[in-house]
Amino acid sequence: MNSTASSRDNSDTGSHEIHDQIRRMRSGDIAALARLLTQVEQGGENAASVLKAAHSCTGNAHVVGITGPTGAGKSTLVGQLTALLRKDDKRVGILAVDPSSPFTGGAFLGDRVRLQHHYLDREVFIRSMATRGATGGLSHMSGGVVRVLDAWGAGVILVETVGVGQTELDIMNTADTVVMVLTPESGDAIQALKAGLLEVIDIFVVNKADREGANQLVTNLNNTIGLAEPHSEWIPPVLSAQTHIGEGVDKIEEAVKKHRELWLTSPHLSKKRCERRRQEFVRIVKARVEEYLNQIDPQETRVAGLLDRVANGEQNPFVAAWDFLSEGDLLQKLSSKQ
Amino acid sequence: MNSTASSRDNSDTGSHEIHDQIRRMRSGDIAALARLLTQVEQGGENAASVLKAAHSCTGNAHVVGITGPTGAGKSTLVGQLTALLRKDDKRVGILAVDPSSPFTGGAFLGDRVRLQHHYLDREVFIRSMATRGATGGLSHMSGGVVRVLDAWGAGVILVETVGVGQTELDIMNTADTVVMVLTPESGDAIQALKAGLLEVIDIFVVNKADREGANQLVTNLNNTIGLAEPHSEWIPPVLSAQTHIGEGVDKIEEAVKKHRELWLTSPHLSKKRCERRRQEFVRIVKARVEEYLNQIDPQETRVAGLLDRVANGEQNPFVAAWDFLSEGDLLQKLSSKQ
Repeated sequence: MNSTASSRDNSDTGSHEIHDQIRRMRSGDIAALARLLTQVEQGGENAASVLKAAHSCTGNAHVVGITGPTGAGKSTLVGQLTALLRKDDKRVGILAVDPSSPFTGGAFLGDRVRLQHHYLDREVFIRSMATRGATGGLSHMSGGVVRVLDAWGAGVILVETVGVGQTELDIMNTADTVVMVLTPESGDAIQALKAGLLEVIDIFVVNKADREGANQLVTNLNNTIGLAEPHSEWIPPVLSAQTHIGEGVDKIEEAVKKHRELWLTSPHLSKKRCERRRQEFVRIVKARVEEYLNQIDPQETRVAGLLDRVANGEQNPFVAAWDFLSEGDLLQKLSSKQ
Repeated sequence: MNSTASSRDNSDTGSHEIHDQIRRMRSGDIAALARLLTQVEQGGENAASVLKAAHSCTGNAHVVGITGPTGAGKSTLVGQLTALLRKDDKRVGILAVDPSSPFTGGAFLGDRVRLQHHYLDREVFIRSMATRGATGGLSHMSGGVVRVLDAWGAGVILVETVGVGQTELDIMNTADTVVMVLTPESGDAIQALKAGLLEVIDIFVVNKADREGANQLVTNLNNTIGLAEPHSEWIPPVLSAQTHIGEGVDKIEEAVKKHRELWLTSPHLSKKRCERRRQEFVRIVKARVEEYLNQIDPQETRVAGLLDRVANGEQNPFVAAWDFLSEGDLLQKLSSKQ
């Protein structure tokens, strides 16, 4: 941390209060955890202060991304894995960025019974986040939320996302281990893999393995993986499961742990980890720039006027971008506004 | 244009030379056109100077995006449409951002015969662009290339892209009219439409309409379109075609022209056009920021050091982004480096 950084802290009192809340959170105060998460989700200076103060307590959690199409059984797997991890007495954080997940509340009623026991367990904390559509939104703060759960003392953080859009890819890129849950019905799976998803996924789960076509899907996945250039010494396993009756979940947990060990020791994966952190930084900077430009105050006449001229076709977008970037005072605005 | 902008021009001589090249290009000098396109593709100050000088000659071309999976017949359609448009004596610009397109050279030999007559026609100009992978790359300059072809005097510019990634979506968003070409075999089509592509596409073409399943695909597409919330007074037509024998191409051209008319007169579409230009500007700014961060000079010790600390996990990516954005001199660097 340099002097520029610390001079941008909240006042001493604010900073002191944040440290106090972090202490309380770590000793198990769930209300403090919730408050800190809210501050981080707000982004901006608040988020920066919390994440700066929490940084020394982070780096211990294993972040596991669980992705796949709607209805594949991701939430059930998250519930089952949580139960297994709790046997090891680990704190578990759950972050649902999947609008269809029962964890996010919307579809909650139907699944309430299945998940309720975790809700009563004070060592399991569940948070849901909206992605606010394709452009920007909260999703670039998911990495921050994960870090607070990490500082809370979570041994494992399960991040549930749906689909394969850019937003989800970005979120998956903040995980140490990515599990993709598929079913025999998810026909586009192989197609998606061919489109470059294979690099991102560490473990495949073929769920509802009692259904027709499950074996075929396992074979197809193994073939696709076999054809791909290996990106590291880790070759993604394809595991069969029936998560609704708990079948195969232990094998999944085992694979997740195995991948974690390699993740911590392999020089290749360590390089990948560094690159992912770097890219998270770039994404956050870009998101902030986009947010600024999309919410420009009409009173900021110079930039607002530039945007108007672009919208009306009076000025070429590239030329305008070039003029805009040559203004030296913009970054100050980017940081002071929020 | 403000004084800051013009002070960032090349020297008077440079600017004079650009205007001279633009004049020559407009009178039909293909070498001048090619040189200007190369300057724009390079990005940075060169691109800004050319686009600024060319701006007053732009705004006349109809930009038509042609997209769809590999093998659907996009290039054949581009060739056929070009032939039709040439009958109207319009200059035609073709931009291929599809690596599998015969226009991009790679797969060129096999299709040479089919396209050759356009290569001999000096009123048809073909340019191909690489996307350089998912992150950044040239693709944010496709809008600039289109503008130069516009200034050259193209009545219609056909932009061929493949697939449905973010890059392609961005490129499609710079087109006035987007045509999607599908075949009965492209099974994922409906899936993709459900994922929000419907908003982007103005005309559907079911190609290879003599094959099994073509009628079914037409019905499915019409149903999907019927279920969607109409975004404007334009309801995307679904047209059958067999482009390899020229069947149905006239209907496609007719629909393209009809959409163009609405595009120019409808207040709703005019709003959409403004928003697209605005978003192109935001994308270019973001691309420039990303480019800068990914190519940081190790001698720029402050930023390079920050990135190193992020990569090593010493500093939280969000905190680092915040510190970075609070440095007032960054934008100057963004614009002066290139």
